[in-house]
Amino acid sequence: MQDADQIVATAHEMADAAAAAILPHFRQAGLAADNKLLEGFDPVTAADRAAELAMREVLARRRPADAILGEEFGTQAGESGLTWVLDPIDGTRAFLCGAASWGVLIGLTDDTGVRYGLIDQPYTGERFEGGLGRARHLRAGIETPLSVRGTTRLAEARLMTTFPEIGSPAEAAAFRNVAEHVQLTRYGLDCYAYGLLALGQIDLVIEAGLQAYDIAGPLAVVEAAGGIVTNWQGGPAHEGGQVVAAASPVLHRATLDLLNR
Amino acid sequence: MQDADQIVATAHEMADAAAAAILPHFRQAGLAADNKLLEGFDPVTAADRAAELAMREVLARRRPADAILGEEFGTQAGESGLTWVLDPIDGTRAFLCGAASWGVLIGLTDDTGVRYGLIDQPYTGERFEGGLGRARHLRAGIETPLSVRGTTRLAEARLMTTFPEIGSPAEAAAFRNVAEHVQLTRYGLDCYAYGLLALGQIDLVIEAGLQAYDIAGPLAVVEAAGGIVTNWQGGPAHEGGQVVAAASPVLHRATLDLLNR
Repeated sequence: MQDADQIVATAHEMADAAAAAILPHFRQAGLAADNKLLEGFDPVTAADRAAELAMREVLARRRPADAILGEEFGTQAGESGLTWVLDPIDGTRAFLCGAASWGVLIGLTDDTGVRYGLIDQPYTGERFEGGLGRARHLRAGIETPLSVRGTTRLAEARLMTTFPEIGSPAEAAAFRNVAEHVQLTRYGLDCYAYGLLALGQIDLVIEAGLQAYDIAGPLAVVEAAGGIVTNWQGGPAHEGGQVVAAASPVLHRATLDLLNR
Repeated sequence: MQDADQIVATAHEMADAAAAAILPHFRQAGLAADNKLLEGFDPVTAADRAAELAMREVLARRRPADAILGEEFGTQAGESGLTWVLDPIDGTRAFLCGAASWGVLIGLTDDTGVRYGLIDQPYTGERFEGGLGRARHLRAGIETPLSVRGTTRLAEARLMTTFPEIGSPAEAAAFRNVAEHVQLTRYGLDCYAYGLLALGQIDLVIEAGLQAYDIAGPLAVVEAAGGIVTNWQGGPAHEGGQVVAAASPVLHRATLDLLNR
């Protein structure tokens, strides 16, 4: 991509702006959560909204020709052929609980799919970056290359998902087909799980019911680290829905087989 | 307690020593996990062992008359009437996955129960301290008082536990009795959940199958913050087993009723 360095610099400025908007709200008493659902609990906070606006302000200034798809403020058309896909706080439920597994997700797509992404966790100070020649974890000025472990055997695999009650009953049963074959399963990590996969700490992430803005950034990070991200049928995952991310092709194939058994 | 300041200084030195022993292993490729179980997976690493030895070295030097109960190296008798209860890495499974919900747990008991405790998370740099007149969260030189939220209604309560498959089938069913009445439930947080309760971020932690060293430190932290920690029958929790920690007496009572329905 011609202007890769400028795109990368813009993304980092967006993540910095989002972090500055969010951190004053994190763990503050009186943080109000509005519920987006009539039934159930899908919270959104002032922090979500402020962070997305902060990122849109950076784009308006630095990349006005690009389109935007954001969780809180929807779509904005563009002419460049590039779309920024933004989730200001992925894991708002974790955020409300004071747990640091939430993250700011930034993805950049063109008509071929996702080209670049960031997962940013401002409280721990971690930033996972993938695409446009980058594959790195940044923290406190220390840069660590992202690279998957390459685990091939399910019996040695470490699996993560956000909720134990994954998706529909059929999706939950398919998930359990995989979970009963792996070394260990962990829950509740939100987007941070994709970062740990890219860091070579775990081997599988399985989710369902995702939106495009939940997966664009993480997908770029995991692929840049050498991992594989598809839907449960092995097709493209960047539109969301059912997603499996794996540390090797062999593990990915074995996981799809169990999900579709 | 007469020598409270010396006890507190010793505990902080122990936590520092444990962190120094553990962090070089965190997220390192090649970290081996030995399995303590014939069936299932109960991992222990070189980091667990090194951290407990480092804490025992501090005690041998500064508090040789106190007894010790540690997860990895068992009991050591003492003459002071005080026992240090140590879990060098609570949440070894999270540790193996690179997630920062594990913690170093330090508790101090006498014949009346737990008097003082620490939950230390070296990667995020957080230390939760409770007892002997302390109730504080320490990070990067910033001290925040620990205080529970005081939530009284289950419908507004945020609940955490480590595993969705909590304890026996009967224990899991009792847990679900509570989970279906709360605002939201999160999984996978290990000892960090007790810290979040003491910080006023969540309202309930429910666990089963705990050992004394899993709960001594967290119990002191939650009680110092104004919370209540008992077993599922409302009795003492410091020996482990089934544990419920709550942000208010009303919420605690309602939770016990549902657990024992």
